Amino acid sequence: MANHVKLAKGNADRPARKRATSYDVAELAGVSQSAVSRVFQAGASASKDMRDRVLSAANKLGYRPNAIARGLITQRSNMVAVVISRQTNLYYPEVLVQLTQRFSEHGIRVLLFTLEHERDIDGVIEQVLQYQVDGVITAAILNDAQLDTVENAGIPVIFYNRTLPERLVNSVRCDQEEGERWLVSQLAAAGHKRFAIVSGPDDSSVSMERTQGALQKLRELSIADVLIVSGDYGYASGRAAFSEIMQRMGGVPDAVIAANDVMAIGCVDEARETNYLRVPEDVSIVGFDGVGPARYAAYDLSTVRQPVGRMSEAAVSMLIERIESPGLSPEKRVFSGDRIIGGSALLADSNS
Amino acid sequence: MANHVKLAKGNADRPARKRATSYDVAELAGVSQSAVSRVFQAGASASKDMRDRVLSAANKLGYRPNAIARGLITQRSNMVAVVISRQTNLYYPEVLVQLTQRFSEHGIRVLLFTLEHERDIDGVIEQVLQYQVDGVITAAILNDAQLDTVENAGIPVIFYNRTLPERLVNSVRCDQEEGERWLVSQLAAAGHKRFAIVSGPDDSSVSMERTQGALQKLRELSIADVLIVSGDYGYASGRAAFSEIMQRMGGVPDAVIAANDVMAIGCVDEARETNYLRVPEDVSIVGFDGVGPARYAAYDLSTVRQPVGRMSEAAVSMLIERIESPGLSPEKRVFSGDRIIGGSALLADSNS
Repeated sequence: MANHVKLAKGNADRPARKRATSYDVAELAGVSQSAVSRVFQAGASASKDMRDRVLSAANKLGYRPNAIARGLITQRSNMVAVVISRQTNLYYPEVLVQLTQRFSEHGIRVLLFTLEHERDIDGVIEQVLQYQVDGVITAAILNDAQLDTVENAGIPVIFYNRTLPERLVNSVRCDQEEGERWLVSQLAAAGHKRFAIVSGPDDSSVSMERTQGALQKLRELSIADVLIVSGDYGYASGRAAFSEIMQRMGGVPDAVIAANDVMAIGCVDEARETNYLRVPEDVSIVGFDGVGPARYAAYDLSTVRQPVGRMSEAAVSMLIERIESPGLSPEKRVFSGDRIIGGSALLADSNS
Repeated sequence: MANHVKLAKGNADRPARKRATSYDVAELAGVSQSAVSRVFQAGASASKDMRDRVLSAANKLGYRPNAIARGLITQRSNMVAVVISRQTNLYYPEVLVQLTQRFSEHGIRVLLFTLEHERDIDGVIEQVLQYQVDGVITAAILNDAQLDTVENAGIPVIFYNRTLPERLVNSVRCDQEEGERWLVSQLAAAGHKRFAIVSGPDDSSVSMERTQGALQKLRELSIADVLIVSGDYGYASGRAAFSEIMQRMGGVPDAVIAANDVMAIGCVDEARETNYLRVPEDVSIVGFDGVGPARYAAYDLSTVRQPVGRMSEAAVSMLIERIESPGLSPEKRVFSGDRIIGGSALLADSNS
């Protein structure tokens, strides 16, 4: 905490003020506190005279009904927690804006929790519980014990782009496997044979699903010898990964499958700038996510775009349903990604 | 609000549960409610036996001290509002992560408010007050009446990258004017004469400061005939702006000054792809912000980077100081941007 700085004289323009309470308003208006509550409660009755007196007093005192105190009575805080991990991936800020705006339309505010890494979730859970949020949307994975803790507190959880396969959980996901399988089949059908994969951080379940999805399809196509190098979702790590691929393969791969667009962009730049390769003529590079820079003309990535709008809409409506009706059975919603054919890779459908 | 869906039978695995209160814990532990409070209050005394009994009961019931109820007593909610406008500008997500993590170190959570446009601030203010936050950091401008409303509620406000020049306010800013003046003087000293400016949205005070800063310096250098076109901070608007510049100038400008990096990237792509121009040989293009894509090799922007880390640290510490000591006099902190010489523009110092 910051120090308590005591000043001999405060700024006269900005005195420390106590917030006006409903009791202050009741006293000034000459009515009961419960009358003040009724005036500020949607659907409750109050005479016009009563309403005028209370609103006039409230206005004079700068009183506003306390959403939080009301929440203590209704057992609703009208706040939900959104947990995201550090945004090296440009994709999440867009999700966050969408979630916040959609909740806002329902009178619900977002309490934000950011993790440096997905594995830092433990400390966050205790905080989430202390703030008595009505629900949680998490873009970080919880283990069984962590999920137990939150569910035992009566708080519904929606996993965003994650799920626990062995358990009844609510989740909204983009179909990572399906997207990767499409990319691989397109690349293979265009004649590519030497593949490399750039995976994301070890603790990213999304990266794991994407990498596994690509590997599985490659195996099915009898392409067994695939080099996997790892990055951290960031641009620099994409450049380093491409350089590592060149070294370890002792030459140029036919195709590089990056676990996100930002690393794919790093691969494109490293291929061009350091290795004087043409993209896609000398090497095909694909990403995943459909972030803004993927559409910059210098990159024009072939990629799979997550339908952020529909996914965030689904997450918000699923969470609100479960806040209102705690007994609802779990649901998993999986959205197909949009298939984007850009100029960064030779795909079977490139010229169709 | 979502409909109240009534189900004949809920999911037996996930019953609706009421949150355990301190009274429930007290009953189970056979102690008073105030004893439970003491156990969970930092610095308050409780015997080891008392502590063991309370913690054991709390654990059985899944009880956690209610940070919000505690806030009602201490007049602190331990929440602050962060208001941002829609993130077409890639710069703000980074700010948001930094602010959230720094507040978190002080046990303070961020309640997030997003605006489609800066002018939508009015509706947000009422919400901010209802949630009884301890303070506000706003990346949207407030007018005098709006600021009065918040200050009258006793809530300190820090303007982020904005200020009200006629008024005593707290603000943390990057020196937009200084940054633009440096860019212009570098471009002019390199021999550029025909200038165009791509401004941001009309309701962005940051865009206005940047545009005015550039214009002022151009006037001082007796370069009076400057074309100004406007964008919305997005990539597509940067491309459209460059195209409009070519048309209205009837040829290629020497230098384009974009109000942010993303629009500068759009200008670079439109110059190269549509007009077959070389950057910087045929046209110099500069941005502002220092976002990640500005360092992608295909763009390598000359720009001014906002010192996000130091700015967010300053905003957090200023707000916490003012929450602890409401009488503190206002302070304005202005940070110089970091000057980045990239390959997108011929600058006087390019070869130094």
